[in-house]
Amino acid sequence: MKHSRSTGKVWLVGVGPGDPDLVTVKAARALAQAQVWLIDDLVPEAMACHASPGTQIIPVGKRGGRCSVSQASIHAQTLAHALAGRCVARVKGGDPLMFGRGGEEAAFLRGHGLDVEVVNGISSGLAAAQALGIALTHRAHCHGVTFVTAHTRGDGEPDWHALAASGTTLVIYMGMHRIAAIQASLLAAGMRADMPAGVVMHASCPEQRCWTGTLDTLTAAATAGLASPSIIVVGEVVGRQAGGAWLVEGSADQDARADRTSCDVVA
Amino acid sequence: MKHSRSTGKVWLVGVGPGDPDLVTVKAARALAQAQVWLIDDLVPEAMACHASPGTQIIPVGKRGGRCSVSQASIHAQTLAHALAGRCVARVKGGDPLMFGRGGEEAAFLRGHGLDVEVVNGISSGLAAAQALGIALTHRAHCHGVTFVTAHTRGDGEPDWHALAASGTTLVIYMGMHRIAAIQASLLAAGMRADMPAGVVMHASCPEQRCWTGTLDTLTAAATAGLASPSIIVVGEVVGRQAGGAWLVEGSADQDARADRTSCDVVA
Repeated sequence: MKHSRSTGKVWLVGVGPGDPDLVTVKAARALAQAQVWLIDDLVPEAMACHASPGTQIIPVGKRGGRCSVSQASIHAQTLAHALAGRCVARVKGGDPLMFGRGGEEAAFLRGHGLDVEVVNGISSGLAAAQALGIALTHRAHCHGVTFVTAHTRGDGEPDWHALAASGTTLVIYMGMHRIAAIQASLLAAGMRADMPAGVVMHASCPEQRCWTGTLDTLTAAATAGLASPSIIVVGEVVGRQAGGAWLVEGSADQDARADRTSCDVVA
Repeated sequence: MKHSRSTGKVWLVGVGPGDPDLVTVKAARALAQAQVWLIDDLVPEAMACHASPGTQIIPVGKRGGRCSVSQASIHAQTLAHALAGRCVARVKGGDPLMFGRGGEEAAFLRGHGLDVEVVNGISSGLAAAQALGIALTHRAHCHGVTFVTAHTRGDGEPDWHALAASGTTLVIYMGMHRIAAIQASLLAAGMRADMPAGVVMHASCPEQRCWTGTLDTLTAAATAGLASPSIIVVGEVVGRQAGGAWLVEGSADQDARADRTSCDVVA
C-alpha cells in the first residue's frame, strides 16, 4: 500500500561512531530536516548539534540486549510519526546496514508503503582503527577484514574456527561482556597466543580509551577498565605497520592505565 | 625527526564511495582547508565541489594494479608538498584504513615527522548494500560481514574455503576481472550454487548499476556490462530481507539490462 503525499518520510540515518563531525554531509542534512528523531541509546548527546530548533528527540535505546524499548515499539513509533506526516530520522550509531537491525526496520516501514531512505554512516570499527593508528588491511598481512558481533542471545555463535582460519583481521562488536570466551575460542581455533590485539572504547569520542596487547593478554583490557561500548580488533595489522615496524607507543590515544597494561607487549 | 612549525599537515581523507554528499563533515572541512589535493583515480570529479578556490588538484591514480603513478612517487609528492609548508589532502576513495594502502602512507609520512591525520570515510561496500536495498548482517542469517579484496598481484589469494565456512556475508572489492575464478572458488569451497549474490558498479554515483542473482549466475553480472569499479556481495542477506520475504524487484536501482538478467533468479 502507498500512502498519500501527506505521509512523512523516514530517514534511516547512520551517524557514525560518536563524533558529530563524523556524520556525512547527507546525514547532517537529513538530521536537520527531520522533525522527529528516534535515537538509539549509544548515540552521544553531542549529536543533537545537528538537530534544528524544535526537533522532538525521542530515545528508543537498547543496550547490550537489555531492551528499554522493544523493537516492536520502535517500529510502531517510527510508523506512527511518519503516518502523521512528519519527517522522521531514525538515528542509529555506525552504519544502519551493519548490525543494529537497520534492514529489519527499513523492510517493516517499506512494507507499510513509506518512503524510507537509508543514509550510510562510518562504522565504529573503522573509527577504532583510526584510534589505534592502524589500517585494518595490509597487502602483506591479510586480504580483508571481518566485522562480527559476539552478541549471541540464542542465535548461536560466530564460527571462530573459520574466522581464525580466514586470515582476515577480526573486528568484534559487542564483545566486552564475553571477552574471556572470545579469547578462549580464538585460542582453541588455533590462533597464536601472541597475535596482536587492540581494544577501543568510545571510539572517536572525547572519552575514547585504547588498549593494545596480544590475544593471550586480551582480558587485561577489561581489567584496565575498558567496557561496553568497545571494539576489539585482533590481527597482524594491530601490531605492525607498514615496513614491519612495531606500532610505537603514543601513536594511539592511550590513557596511562591502558598504557601500563600494554607497554610490555607492544614495545 | 620533527620538522619546524612551517611544515604543513597531511590529511589522509577517505571521501567515501563517490557521492560528494557522502563525505563526512570532518572530511569536507579538511578538503576545504587543504591547499593541495593528491587524488586517487577512482574519486569522481564531482568531489572537487569540496575544494576551495585555487586548490591544486593532482591526480595520482592507480587503477586495478595499473600504476600510472607509483606508490613511491605518491609518497614523495605528498612529502614534498607538506615539507614546503602546504596543507595537503591525500584524497582516497572509501575509507583510508580499509584497502588502498592508507596505513602505509600514514606510516611513511609519520616516519618523516609529519603531522598526519586520518579521516574515516564510508567504504564502498556499505554504499553497495544501500544500493541493493539490503543490510549486510541479519541476526537470523549471519553474525558478520567480511570485506575482502580479490586483487592478488602475487600476494596469494583469500582463503575462500575459510570465508565460505565463516558464514559471514562476503563483500568483495576489485573482483570483476576475476569474477569467474571467484565463483569457481566459492563453489569449490562448498558454498551452495543458489546463494544469493549482488553486484553494484559505481555505488552511490549517478551512473550506479546493480545486478542481483545467485552464485551460479554471478558471471552474468559481467555479461550484463558491470565492470570495475564494482562491489560483489555474496550471502543470504542479498536475497532476503527481514521476515524471509524475498527482495522485491525495484528495491534496487537496477537498469533494464541488469533487471532482465536478474529477474528470473530474484523473483
